Amino acid sequence: MSRQSEGSSLVAASRFITLSEVRDSRSRVAEAAIRTPILPLRSSVRAGVYGKCENLQNTGAFKIRGAYNKISRLPASCAGVVAYSSGNHARAVATAARSRGLRACVVMYGNSTPDKVQALRSLEAEVILDGSTSEALRKRAEREVQERGFTMVPPFNDLEIMAGQATLGLEIREDLPGATAIVAAIGGGGLLGGLAAAVKESRPDVKVFGVQAEGAPGMLQSLRKGEVVTLEKAETVADGLRALRPGELTFEHVRNYVDDVITVSDAEILAATRGLLFTDHLVVEPAGAAALAAIASERLPMPPGPAVAVLSGGNVDVRRILATEDRAR
Amino acid sequence: MSRQSEGSSLVAASRFITLSEVRDSRSRVAEAAIRTPILPLRSSVRAGVYGKCENLQNTGAFKIRGAYNKISRLPASCAGVVAYSSGNHARAVATAARSRGLRACVVMYGNSTPDKVQALRSLEAEVILDGSTSEALRKRAEREVQERGFTMVPPFNDLEIMAGQATLGLEIREDLPGATAIVAAIGGGGLLGGLAAAVKESRPDVKVFGVQAEGAPGMLQSLRKGEVVTLEKAETVADGLRALRPGELTFEHVRNYVDDVITVSDAEILAATRGLLFTDHLVVEPAGAAALAAIASERLPMPPGPAVAVLSGGNVDVRRILATEDRAR
Repeated sequence: MSRQSEGSSLVAASRFITLSEVRDSRSRVAEAAIRTPILPLRSSVRAGVYGKCENLQNTGAFKIRGAYNKISRLPASCAGVVAYSSGNHARAVATAARSRGLRACVVMYGNSTPDKVQALRSLEAEVILDGSTSEALRKRAEREVQERGFTMVPPFNDLEIMAGQATLGLEIREDLPGATAIVAAIGGGGLLGGLAAAVKESRPDVKVFGVQAEGAPGMLQSLRKGEVVTLEKAETVADGLRALRPGELTFEHVRNYVDDVITVSDAEILAATRGLLFTDHLVVEPAGAAALAAIASERLPMPPGPAVAVLSGGNVDVRRILATEDRAR
Repeated sequence: MSRQSEGSSLVAASRFITLSEVRDSRSRVAEAAIRTPILPLRSSVRAGVYGKCENLQNTGAFKIRGAYNKISRLPASCAGVVAYSSGNHARAVATAARSRGLRACVVMYGNSTPDKVQALRSLEAEVILDGSTSEALRKRAEREVQERGFTMVPPFNDLEIMAGQATLGLEIREDLPGATAIVAAIGGGGLLGGLAAAVKESRPDVKVFGVQAEGAPGMLQSLRKGEVVTLEKAETVADGLRALRPGELTFEHVRNYVDDVITVSDAEILAATRGLLFTDHLVVEPAGAAALAAIASERLPMPPGPAVAVLSGGNVDVRRILATEDRAR
């Protein structure tokens, strides 16, 4: 999966994000996102494991970095932005749009819970409830682009989105310069792809690993096949990792920059989630705990030295975590 | 409560901690404690309120700073250390002693829960279960001093303990230099007294406020009377704030350095605790949320500008917080 071995990759991807694009995105991203802390994780059985705490980020997840990076570059004449998402991306887009004085429209599953809808409406977003598949949501969102001239803010397959997420890679590099490995989960691959590019272009010696849920291994299967594949289903307790299909751009970034990708089970994800809650005093959503679960699994070829697990989000009802503990007993 | 107005204070207190003592303690404390992050609190209705996240500290509370500062100064010939505590101080003393290769003995209430006992035993501490009042615990601990030559590590009324806790004041000053106010809860007063001395001796313009639980206002009553008083009872949901009596040293430090002390109700404390859990994704124990509750109460004379609430600990069973939510509905 090294860049050198992939002569054809630049054909499929329009191009890769560059380190200077990520650097240029930093001051912009800093208008909306905090520099989250990197903390030693006491719940880790392995010593020297740190969490990059994006669960403590504005909007509760790393998504604000990419969303703001893209939305803040839109002209004031922009009619509005539209996104399709059931979770963290929607919240980030609504937050970024509001702070820029832009209208935001979010298309969500028809059966979304009232509290999720209310959370977005309280951010002044227009919410459209329509569709039961990701593809249906996307099509409905496209209508807002066609009919109202809104700008689509895709969840991951976009260079500005990826460059925004990648800013957290630079923060890790600076705040824990001795880190020898960084692990992040893969939903669509925007976080890992961006982060890996930023880290590898500046510190190729640092290992970058990706993690997927066992029930949603779209990126892993794509890597094995050598092209983007679409899963028939994606089932995991980790909402944020349920993508049926990686993006073309994110696939190329992961293929070129990431050292290895493994899967973890829901039980492993939930054990890591509980450890973070009970021992580290951090509320992390299951998708955000997958990277730590991968380190704990000992199935990753971790080099000696400090390792960073990206705790990508914290938007979860704590009762759900406690309920899984009762089942695990 | 300014130093100038208290001509007699130095009679009662042996002396005050000095800024240089706090500075000297920093590298020592850093061997056992992390520099905890200061994060904007999204759950705060007032803008510009930050949390100094000692709930993310090693051992889960600020107590490790003082305990390690004292214990690491003991000679290798020391027979061992003894502490009486039902919570965070015990954990800190056991952790600090173990890291220095010293024996630790902790005297706890006879009815302590098995998990608390087990947590200390897993830190290799000897646990003595005997007594039902703080005074009884103290007397039992004194026996270990008399009979075995152990060194007592008091929970708060000690200059080395206070200088250790005070190191977090210097971190706040450096990491958020624009802060105009710092608020911390008072159990025995070691945290607030130490922190206030460190902050006021270097930045007298920064306001420092103290917070007690309505049901345990020992420091407030002492300040009003002009001398240390002992409460007949101390009842609050915040375990860490149940001291019947402040120390002589901590009383003098608070009297001399703290701008104002107010009380908050258990309902206010629990509302702040829930906000931190649900909105900020931080597990904070009730005692650790009291400072934020005080800011939210709007009964403190807050100056304009950023304010810091010290979130002093996170050692709480999350189920307890959720149970209070059900009652609050």
